[in-house]
Amino acid sequence: MLTLKTSDTDFEAKFARVVNGRRESGADTARTVSEILTKVRDRGDEALAEMTARYDGYHLTDDESWRIGPEACHAAFAALDPVLREALELAADRIRAYHTDQLPGDRDFTDTAGVRLGARWRAVDAAGLYVPGGRAAYPSSLLMNAIPAKVAGVERLAVVTPTPKGAVNPLVLAAAHLVGIEEIWRVGGAQAIGALAYGTRRIKPVDVITGPGNAYVAEAKRQLYGVVGIDMVAGPSEILVIADSKNDPDWIAADLLSQAEHDPTSQSILITDDPAFAEQVEDRIDVQCSMLSTQRTARKSWDDHGVMLIVSDFAEAPALANRLAAEHVELAIDDPEAMFAELRHAGSVFLGRYTPEAVGDYVAGPNHVLPTGRRARFASGLSVLDFMKRTSFISMDRAALGKIGPAAIALAEAEGLPAHAHSVKVRLS
Amino acid sequence: MLTLKTSDTDFEAKFARVVNGRRESGADTARTVSEILTKVRDRGDEALAEMTARYDGYHLTDDESWRIGPEACHAAFAALDPVLREALELAADRIRAYHTDQLPGDRDFTDTAGVRLGARWRAVDAAGLYVPGGRAAYPSSLLMNAIPAKVAGVERLAVVTPTPKGAVNPLVLAAAHLVGIEEIWRVGGAQAIGALAYGTRRIKPVDVITGPGNAYVAEAKRQLYGVVGIDMVAGPSEILVIADSKNDPDWIAADLLSQAEHDPTSQSILITDDPAFAEQVEDRIDVQCSMLSTQRTARKSWDDHGVMLIVSDFAEAPALANRLAAEHVELAIDDPEAMFAELRHAGSVFLGRYTPEAVGDYVAGPNHVLPTGRRARFASGLSVLDFMKRTSFISMDRAALGKIGPAAIALAEAEGLPAHAHSVKVRLS
Repeated sequence: MLTLKTSDTDFEAKFARVVNGRRESGADTARTVSEILTKVRDRGDEALAEMTARYDGYHLTDDESWRIGPEACHAAFAALDPVLREALELAADRIRAYHTDQLPGDRDFTDTAGVRLGARWRAVDAAGLYVPGGRAAYPSSLLMNAIPAKVAGVERLAVVTPTPKGAVNPLVLAAAHLVGIEEIWRVGGAQAIGALAYGTRRIKPVDVITGPGNAYVAEAKRQLYGVVGIDMVAGPSEILVIADSKNDPDWIAADLLSQAEHDPTSQSILITDDPAFAEQVEDRIDVQCSMLSTQRTARKSWDDHGVMLIVSDFAEAPALANRLAAEHVELAIDDPEAMFAELRHAGSVFLGRYTPEAVGDYVAGPNHVLPTGRRARFASGLSVLDFMKRTSFISMDRAALGKIGPAAIALAEAEGLPAHAHSVKVRLS
Repeated sequence: MLTLKTSDTDFEAKFARVVNGRRESGADTARTVSEILTKVRDRGDEALAEMTARYDGYHLTDDESWRIGPEACHAAFAALDPVLREALELAADRIRAYHTDQLPGDRDFTDTAGVRLGARWRAVDAAGLYVPGGRAAYPSSLLMNAIPAKVAGVERLAVVTPTPKGAVNPLVLAAAHLVGIEEIWRVGGAQAIGALAYGTRRIKPVDVITGPGNAYVAEAKRQLYGVVGIDMVAGPSEILVIADSKNDPDWIAADLLSQAEHDPTSQSILITDDPAFAEQVEDRIDVQCSMLSTQRTARKSWDDHGVMLIVSDFAEAPALANRLAAEHVELAIDDPEAMFAELRHAGSVFLGRYTPEAVGDYVAGPNHVLPTGRRARFASGLSVLDFMKRTSFISMDRAALGKIGPAAIALAEAEGLPAHAHSVKVRLS
C-alpha cells in the first residue's frame, strides 16, 4: 500500500506513476492469442476440441458433450435456496427495468428544406456472451450481460463458458435459466471468442461479443474488434473512495476490501483529508482482512496496488479523481452532489454514505460492466446500445433536391468527384 | 463486373463469395503498423520527424514547420469562391442541426424502492481527427468528423494531416476555419495516430481518434483501441442500389459510379428484377465513365468489384440486402418505405428516386462516416455519442439500502465474495 500526500513536494511525480501504472498484460499474451485465433479460424471445432482438452481438461466428443442443455439450467434454478432465488429475481427485475428505460428512441422529421431525415435503431441479430469459469464465475455477470441484450431485442444469445474437468457452476446455470438462455457451449478462453467471431461448423458466428474474462479473453476480443462488435476492453477492476473523517472507518475499509477481494490485480484507492482517519481505515482493513475467506487475494491486491491519497482540502479531490478516471467512485462525504458535478470521468458513481459499491454489483440496476484502467475518459458502461445499431435515413422529393442539391454539386466538383456531382445534376436537369 | 441471378442454381455459392469477399489489408500491414507505433511511443517527436521526412518528403524542424496556423486557415476560407463558401456553410449548418438533435438526454429518477438512479453524459476532454492527404483529402470529411465533436462539447480538437512535400489542401484549411479548429499538425499515417494516442512532447494525447485514412491509419486505430476510443474500423466504401426498371438507367448508373470513383477497392452493387434494365445501366456506366476525370478509378472499381444481382422478385431483395449489410443502400422503387421496414442492416438508407447517395456525402445532415465491410450488422455511423461517455450513478439512504441490500448480501455470499457482503451488512447492523 502506498500513502501519498498532495502537500508532499514529490507528490506529482508519484501520483503520475499511480495514474499511468499498468496492471495489464502485454505482448506475450497478444502473440499467443493471435495463434489461438488463427487455429480456430482455420480448423474450427477440431481446434476447439484440442484446446479444450489441453487447457480445461475436458473432452468435447459427441453432441451432448459440447453443450449444457436448458434442462440442466432449469434443474439448477429449481434447486436454488429460496432466499437466493428471490435475490436473483430481484436483481434481474431491477436490471431489466433500468435497461428498458435506456432504450433509444428513433428519429423521423422533415426539415424546412423539405428533406425528411431520421435514424432508426435495431438490435443485432446475435450476441455471444463469455462467462468465465473458475475464480470469476459470477451469476451476476451473466445477468448484467444477458439482460441488456434481451432488452435490446437480440434474438439469439449464445453463451460460451469453460467447464474445467467438466465442472459447471450451478448458480450460473440457474441465472441462465432465469434470463432464458438456451444456447450454452462448453468452451472458454481465447478459442471460445474466436469461435463466436468466426463461427465453426457447430457454433454459428455472432455479431457482438461481451462478457468478462481473463487477459487472454480480453486480448482475443481486442484483436477481433471490427470482425465483431465488442464491449469495452476490460482490465483489472478498481475503486476510488472519497471519504471524510465523519465516516465509520469500518464501512470504508469494507468498501476498499470489496474491490481488493476480486483479484490480486484489483486496485483500491482512498482519498481523504484526514491522515488519522486514513490510519483508522488501514487498521480496520487489517482486522477485516483476517476474517475473509478471500483474504489472500484481498491482502495481495491492497499491499501491491492500494493507495491512500491525503489531500489538504477536498477541493483538490475532483481533479485527482478525473485523472484517475476510475471504474467505481464512492462519494462518502456531506455534499456528494457538489463533488459529483465536478467529476468528468468515472464509470459509475455511488453517492452518499449508504451507497456501498457492492449494491451496484448486484441489485441496484445500472450495469456493473464498466470501463477500467482510465478508459472512463472515453468509454461507458455496458448498455442496450452495445447490442443495437443505428441506421440513418434520408428521403427527398424533386423540390427538396432542388434546394440542397446544388451545394452538393459544388462540393463534389471541388473535391474532384465528378460522378458524385453528376448523380445530382442528372436528376435536376 | 459480376452478374448473378437468384434463379441460377449456383447462386448461393456465388453470392456467399460476394458477401464474404474481403477488400481489406492483412497481416503485413499489422506488423508494419505495430513497429511504427512502438517507435512513436518510445521516441516521440524524433520518430515523427524521421517518418514524416521518409514517407511525406516533408521536414519537421522548427516550431513553425510542425503546425498549420489559424491564419492560414482563415486566409484559405477568405479566398474561397463564394458559391463554394456558401455550399460549405450550408453543409456545416445542416450537419450541425442534425447532430445537435442527436444529443442524448441525462436520466435521474427515484424508483419505488427509494433508490435514486441515473446516467449522465459528458464529452471527452480531447479528440484527435485524422484528415488524409492526397486522394481522399476531403473538406466534407473534416466537417463530418469535427462538427459532431464540437456539438458533443469536446473542448480540444487536434487535427493531424500529412502534407506531402509540404503541400496543403486549401479547401480542407477553409473547412477547418469554418468549424473553428485551431490545432493542426503536419503529420500523417500510422505515426500520426500513435502520436495522438500516446502523446509526444509537442502533441498532447487525446481520448478519442476519428477520421478516415488508408489501410495503415485504419490498422493503427484498431491496434490502439482501448488506449483511446476510436470510431469504427473503416474499410473500403460500398453502395447497394435497389432499383426497378421504372428508373432512368442514367440516374442509377451515376449512383453506382459515384461510389466506384472513390477508390479502386470501392464496391457498387445493383439489385434489380429486370435483366434488360441491368444491361441498360451497364451501357450507361460505360458511356458516363468515359466522361469522368476519375474514370480510371471508377472503371477499375466497377470491373473488379461491381455486381449486378438479378432477382426474380423484389421480395427477395431485403434478405440479400441484410446479408450484404452495406454502408449505403438506395431504394429507388415505388414503395421504398415498405422495403426499408424489412432492412435490418445498413449504414444509411436513401429513400426514393430523388435521393442520390451523394447528397448524404455532403449536405443532407446525417453523418457520412458509416460502417463498411458488413459492419452495419453491429455498428453505427459516426455520431455525437462517439465523442461522449456515460457515467451511471446510484444514491441510497438507509431505508433504500434496507430494502435491496439483503439481496446483494445473499448474492455476494453465494459468489464467494464476503467483503462485498460485509460492506452492505456493516451499514445495516
